[in-house]
Amino acid sequence: MAPKAYIPSMAEDPVETNPGNYRVAFENERVRVLEYTDAPGHVTTEHGHPDSVMITASAFNRRISANGNSVDVELPAGVARWLPAQHHYGENIGGSDTHVFFVELKDAAPPSTDEVADQLGPAHS
Amino acid sequence: MAPKAYIPSMAEDPVETNPGNYRVAFENERVRVLEYTDAPGHVTTEHGHPDSVMITASAFNRRISANGNSVDVELPAGVARWLPAQHHYGENIGGSDTHVFFVELKDAAPPSTDEVADQLGPAHS
Repeated sequence: MAPKAYIPSMAEDPVETNPGNYRVAFENERVRVLEYTDAPGHVTTEHGHPDSVMITASAFNRRISANGNSVDVELPAGVARWLPAQHHYGENIGGSDTHVFFVELKDAAPPSTDEVADQLGPAHS
Repeated sequence: MAPKAYIPSMAEDPVETNPGNYRVAFENERVRVLEYTDAPGHVTTEHGHPDSVMITASAFNRRISANGNSVDVELPAGVARWLPAQHHYGENIGGSDTHVFFVELKDAAPPSTDEVADQLGPAHS
């Protein structure tokens, strides 16, 4: 099975769904960096993220929801977290503005060892 | 020409050359996230970076040097910059501590259109 790059459709792209909160800080062939800002009480429209690294420029306290489930996430400023590809919407349930960067990976994930073996076929294993 | 992933050797890896300043904040198959901290006046040992996104968690004022040349870089907190693969050493020439994240890309860069055409050969063009 070939690796697939997850690319949100236009309707899922947070820059399209929430243009007042997400802006493209930088983009090239390998990555797109999004800068997110909001104020307390703000709720985003549902949107998609590809595999990304999230880095907090501020502390935040957010309720992340998808498929009828929610989880509250509280983080300090200056931490990095892996965000696997997902759809969700978020609410700022804290008392301060949010400022976060998302480094979106455009490349397809490298195939795992098993996937490489599948591609080579039994003659090569 | 096949794309190549730039992987610093152990001697060039800033986690090895400057263990007091660089720590691995997160790592998986696709990225390694380094967190860098220092104090005014500190100078790093020369080291290598693969293609990376740099995100500042603090403002900084640094002199970056390589191959006998230097450039002074002053940035505010909360900005993202592309750092193409390079060797250098850096000096904190400002009056405050530095706190910066580097999202290192492990994947090889995707081949350009021309490179794909080269790989397919004339029969497919």
